[in-house]
Amino acid sequence: MSEIRRDPVIGRWVIIAPERAARPDPNLWQQLDRQPAPCVFCSGQEALDPTEISAIRTPGTVANSPGWQVRVLPNKYPVLRIEGKLSREGVGMFDVMSGVGAHEVIVETPEHSIELADLPEAHIAGVIRIYRERMRDLGGDDRFKYVLIFKNQGYLAGASISHPHSQLIATPVTPTRVKEELAGAAKYYDFKRRCVFCDIIRQETLLTRERLVFENDAFAVISPFAARVPYETWIVPKSHNCDFTSIRDADCGDLAQALKHILLRLRTLLQDPPLNYLIHTAPFRRPRPGYWATINHDYHWHLEVIPRITRAAGFEEGSGFYINPVSPEDAADLLRKVQAEPVEDDKPEMDPQNGSAEPAGDQAQTTSDAGRDSQKIV
Amino acid sequence: MSEIRRDPVIGRWVIIAPERAARPDPNLWQQLDRQPAPCVFCSGQEALDPTEISAIRTPGTVANSPGWQVRVLPNKYPVLRIEGKLSREGVGMFDVMSGVGAHEVIVETPEHSIELADLPEAHIAGVIRIYRERMRDLGGDDRFKYVLIFKNQGYLAGASISHPHSQLIATPVTPTRVKEELAGAAKYYDFKRRCVFCDIIRQETLLTRERLVFENDAFAVISPFAARVPYETWIVPKSHNCDFTSIRDADCGDLAQALKHILLRLRTLLQDPPLNYLIHTAPFRRPRPGYWATINHDYHWHLEVIPRITRAAGFEEGSGFYINPVSPEDAADLLRKVQAEPVEDDKPEMDPQNGSAEPAGDQAQTTSDAGRDSQKIV
Repeated sequence: MSEIRRDPVIGRWVIIAPERAARPDPNLWQQLDRQPAPCVFCSGQEALDPTEISAIRTPGTVANSPGWQVRVLPNKYPVLRIEGKLSREGVGMFDVMSGVGAHEVIVETPEHSIELADLPEAHIAGVIRIYRERMRDLGGDDRFKYVLIFKNQGYLAGASISHPHSQLIATPVTPTRVKEELAGAAKYYDFKRRCVFCDIIRQETLLTRERLVFENDAFAVISPFAARVPYETWIVPKSHNCDFTSIRDADCGDLAQALKHILLRLRTLLQDPPLNYLIHTAPFRRPRPGYWATINHDYHWHLEVIPRITRAAGFEEGSGFYINPVSPEDAADLLRKVQAEPVEDDKPEMDPQNGSAEPAGDQAQTTSDAGRDSQKIV
Repeated sequence: MSEIRRDPVIGRWVIIAPERAARPDPNLWQQLDRQPAPCVFCSGQEALDPTEISAIRTPGTVANSPGWQVRVLPNKYPVLRIEGKLSREGVGMFDVMSGVGAHEVIVETPEHSIELADLPEAHIAGVIRIYRERMRDLGGDDRFKYVLIFKNQGYLAGASISHPHSQLIATPVTPTRVKEELAGAAKYYDFKRRCVFCDIIRQETLLTRERLVFENDAFAVISPFAARVPYETWIVPKSHNCDFTSIRDADCGDLAQALKHILLRLRTLLQDPPLNYLIHTAPFRRPRPGYWATINHDYHWHLEVIPRITRAAGFEEGSGFYINPVSPEDAADLLRKVQAEPVEDDKPEMDPQNGSAEPAGDQAQTTSDAGRDSQKIV
């Protein structure tokens, strides 16, 4: 079982997960070719998978069989395990927590070779609704403080399976990076009585538009002023809201449009770069009275897209500085100008069981074992 | 010119360095083959280089010509530039500093294909004495708060030139990672009245030896309890000392032995992995009265070796957590057991000018333009 160890100097948490070493990843630092279909995430291979946690499926189809458009599975090689109590103990001078958490895979499409960016907006909106549903569900588990939803696309961005998928990890502590954002946003609010993200949106959409890549009714897509890496992009809701799980269905559509837009443009401009994206939102639990009321005012959820076209080196690791060779203004300019189109797919979205084209997204129903049973998670 | 931008939310500093994009790095995320000799760092190619800053050379040879064993050059594509004043300004709601600093290359050997680990210990000790000398020299410049010395070995660890070299970057602010260590060590000292690194050494060399890889008179080599990545290793001086620049010549020899030992073992065990190493030491300037006196007690310099055999992914970037699939105890055990030998070199260390074998290290003299002139740095 994994354990979560605390660095005795700076307090950084590290998950020691020896079971992860068994993953199908034979050449750890050599690039893998795209894997052939069918893989374990393909429609028709459900018998090879652990028990399905949730799915968007065609009405009338049953769990753990074809007929799904988006599907959630427990990760076969989990970083943290759902079973067990959260315990803390000392080991000599050191501190350890048990590796309790959840690690799930969100398979974004039954088709092996269609990238997320090429799916219809309504389908991407379905993926986003599944993110929201899983986060709400895991928020009911008292052991968890946070759920991080993320996507690794391409080998150098950490993917070990090429079939399009996202992941989530629920953790018993609020991650450092999120704590830093909460603390920074609170400090700004104390000083200005305004949300720092709301101020960023105002600066980037009204005062200057040089770092604005795209906007629609609900979202602004920007190159952040202090982008860590070339072409880093944030998708920020224009209305103040600290909590991703409160996103409305209509706004899932706007987020899908913004996400598709930026993913297509990055793919064309950078020739299919490895990339990550992740959602930062307020943690579940309130550590002190009034905390949630405060966080409502000063924190603001958002989605960060991080292309992986530079290599972190000794300076970055040793300093915590990032070196970015592309100015955010140039990046935004190039992303605005590039002509990007989705790869045309010959087939409509297929129900792989009966061969009929089925609408994805809003029309399909969500089947979820809401009373999630840890016994079912293999 | 570069600028240093502050993230408005968490205060993270990012160096925006558009000039770096001109580096000879055409396929940013594809692995480069080992480059052929002679390269700009090879002996005999000095005319292609910027003016030499310092060197260990055979007596009688002159700067900017062959006859050197270790040589320091300004980086041709500097992340920060030595010219100019340090200024801070606001850009709308954002904060910027001018990109002032120093960026130097320490060429570790005139031979293109001899890795640092295969050099004689006395030669490696010479490289370490050059680190010390450059750090002392740059400490005299009031604009700098810190010098980070680091090495990128292998393409995926950030190297773009294969000829063995280290680098240093002097920064006008203390890097976040170092600040975190200083703050964590101070907190521990406040609570225990002991240095946390001294406690770690006691734990790892006396109470249990399961994470101890190697030790000599002056240094312990350990797998840290909360290692971020597989086979992360720290070289820690056994005697309490916050300041790397105070290392004595004899201890440079012990450090060279420890460094050679761990680099050879990592190469054999992991089949020549990409890796970084870096030195963490106390910053130059004292921000408040008594600060230096405190830091003397609670901080402890050390060298961190970080193999790059796993890929950071969305979870790590979004959370600040690290996931390490190899337990530090297993890593230490494997590193203790592996049989590792240097690659035998047919030739003795050559003076490339007159063909005679010359002793490297202590016997050779250091020529340094101690009154460093920023005009000379191209």
